[in-house]
Amino acid sequence: MHATVIHAPGDIRFEEVPDPVLSTGGDAIVRVVAACVCGSDLWPYRGIDAVPRPKRIGHEFVGVVEQVGPEVERIRVGDFVIAPFYDCDMTCVNCRNGVSTSCLHGGWWGADDRMGGFADGGQGERIRVPHADGSLFATPGMPDDALVPHLLTLADVMGTGHHAAVSGGAGPGRTVVVVGDGAVGLCAVLASARLGAERIVAMSRHPERQALARRFGATDVVEERGAEGVARIRELFDGVGADVVLECVGTEESMDQALRSARPGGQVGFVGVPHGPSTLPLDRMFGSNVGVRGGVAPVRNYVEELLPEVWDGRLEPGAVFDLELPMAEVAEAYAAMDERRAVKVLLRP
Amino acid sequence: MHATVIHAPGDIRFEEVPDPVLSTGGDAIVRVVAACVCGSDLWPYRGIDAVPRPKRIGHEFVGVVEQVGPEVERIRVGDFVIAPFYDCDMTCVNCRNGVSTSCLHGGWWGADDRMGGFADGGQGERIRVPHADGSLFATPGMPDDALVPHLLTLADVMGTGHHAAVSGGAGPGRTVVVVGDGAVGLCAVLASARLGAERIVAMSRHPERQALARRFGATDVVEERGAEGVARIRELFDGVGADVVLECVGTEESMDQALRSARPGGQVGFVGVPHGPSTLPLDRMFGSNVGVRGGVAPVRNYVEELLPEVWDGRLEPGAVFDLELPMAEVAEAYAAMDERRAVKVLLRP
Repeated sequence: MHATVIHAPGDIRFEEVPDPVLSTGGDAIVRVVAACVCGSDLWPYRGIDAVPRPKRIGHEFVGVVEQVGPEVERIRVGDFVIAPFYDCDMTCVNCRNGVSTSCLHGGWWGADDRMGGFADGGQGERIRVPHADGSLFATPGMPDDALVPHLLTLADVMGTGHHAAVSGGAGPGRTVVVVGDGAVGLCAVLASARLGAERIVAMSRHPERQALARRFGATDVVEERGAEGVARIRELFDGVGADVVLECVGTEESMDQALRSARPGGQVGFVGVPHGPSTLPLDRMFGSNVGVRGGVAPVRNYVEELLPEVWDGRLEPGAVFDLELPMAEVAEAYAAMDERRAVKVLLRP
Repeated sequence: MHATVIHAPGDIRFEEVPDPVLSTGGDAIVRVVAACVCGSDLWPYRGIDAVPRPKRIGHEFVGVVEQVGPEVERIRVGDFVIAPFYDCDMTCVNCRNGVSTSCLHGGWWGADDRMGGFADGGQGERIRVPHADGSLFATPGMPDDALVPHLLTLADVMGTGHHAAVSGGAGPGRTVVVVGDGAVGLCAVLASARLGAERIVAMSRHPERQALARRFGATDVVEERGAEGVARIRELFDGVGADVVLECVGTEESMDQALRSARPGGQVGFVGVPHGPSTLPLDRMFGSNVGVRGGVAPVRNYVEELLPEVWDGRLEPGAVFDLELPMAEVAEAYAAMDERRAVKVLLRP
């Protein structure tokens, strides 16, 4: 079979790899129906994260179960499944506490898993999924082709946008600012609207992204950044800032923008993967009582809540995909996202 | 009249100062019935905060209103009042949002106020209170002498402990760890118990403070600190840590202790005034989904909720005072707290 391997920054190849095999009793083998490229995949692609050796890459996929190990009880061959961007057993204390990204027995696609094998990357034709009963969530039936992109977002971006909104406390009567107009930021707008936020500001300079943000529920768009952006946000909200600010980028600048855009007593929900000097100014947080909460999103815990609305068409997060390519053209998918020619690229084998 | 002035680190004097006078229409003059020394007063006393020139000090007091300006409508001469550790108008957007410490027109005792005068310190015989209608809260009547210490805690420590508990999300079914066994930490134990926390661990090595923590509702005491303290806390809570950790010290070590004692997805409520390199490790917060929320406590906003229980004797936070001195002996009060001979010292003029 074929899968995506990153050999070095900028060097993405779709190449022949061994077929996956069941290696623990709890594994499943999933034939991928759709996968995609994440903003965080661009960090090694851009050389900001090191690539010491060639490595399987990708962590968002949906597909059909082809085989299951003898200990798998819930997931069956033939199920259409959503896989989160990590594996988890959903039985340990952290999973039960709603934080399956901290699963005591879980791991990450493309990394050594903790069961002795080597976890496949998500951008391949077939994938071995550890802890299949925990990691995978089966849809109520076989989805139409048009529904697949929307379901795929539950593997990462929509669940991550939802996590930002929940961590920041978006809800009825709250004012929300979203920092970041990538796929996660756009999903954070959609999640905030779904949770009933009163007013949602998308910070974006890109006309197409602004349009999608408005379609997702943004009531206002602010193009300014930095001090000017903060001034605009304060102007919109009583001179003091918004109740909730969602940080969906992961840079020092975006976190600073978020902290300064929140009103005293407000809250920053953050899901951008921190890069660079990743510290928070505790003294400023102390003075302003602005809280910070978030992190790597436990999207598997959110599937139960979000799937019904995606399944019946009320929630259409798949609109974040603005380019679709055959998986064999995955190198072009990375280039398109790197050059911001695409928000998010969907790949079909 | 006399008031406390800090001349230099270690040099506290109770000396003759001018009587306060009404300087804005919204002022009141309060005759102090009781005041006290705060842990944060020890920062300049110990020379950790600079003392560039002699300066009035103290910020916790209760007393009786002697005069009011012509614009004061709610507060009346003769009222027994609780003053928060800052002044605030309770009408601006931040005060209405519950964050009166960020009052757009407020200030701090012992600092220049924004009305052109110089705010009195709280450890004096009489004090001019700006924004009297906002800052002051009148009790339902004249309290018994025995009730005064309990009422005095609403000016800072009890409200601050409550803020830690609220910021951390202490409540029914939650497990709580309190880092810091000073007066604020002890009040955070009491506040967590009042809010219905299921289990409350006080981290303390001092037998008397441990005993008071247990009286306030602590179910467990952990004497270990650092890595050993973290190991003990994880042992107590499913191997992963507590739902809620309250940071009530303000050092780098105490915040690190707090962050490591929270379970994945948990929350740190912090009220310790940050000193030293005051940053938070965003990458660790990202990986563990531990949130951090808190800051300078808007105690004025909490008086309505807490006062009834103090007034009728159900809540007795005044037990944190373990030494009472005449205000003229304020220098000894500082020394006793500095040398940890006393948890908190009450002063009466």
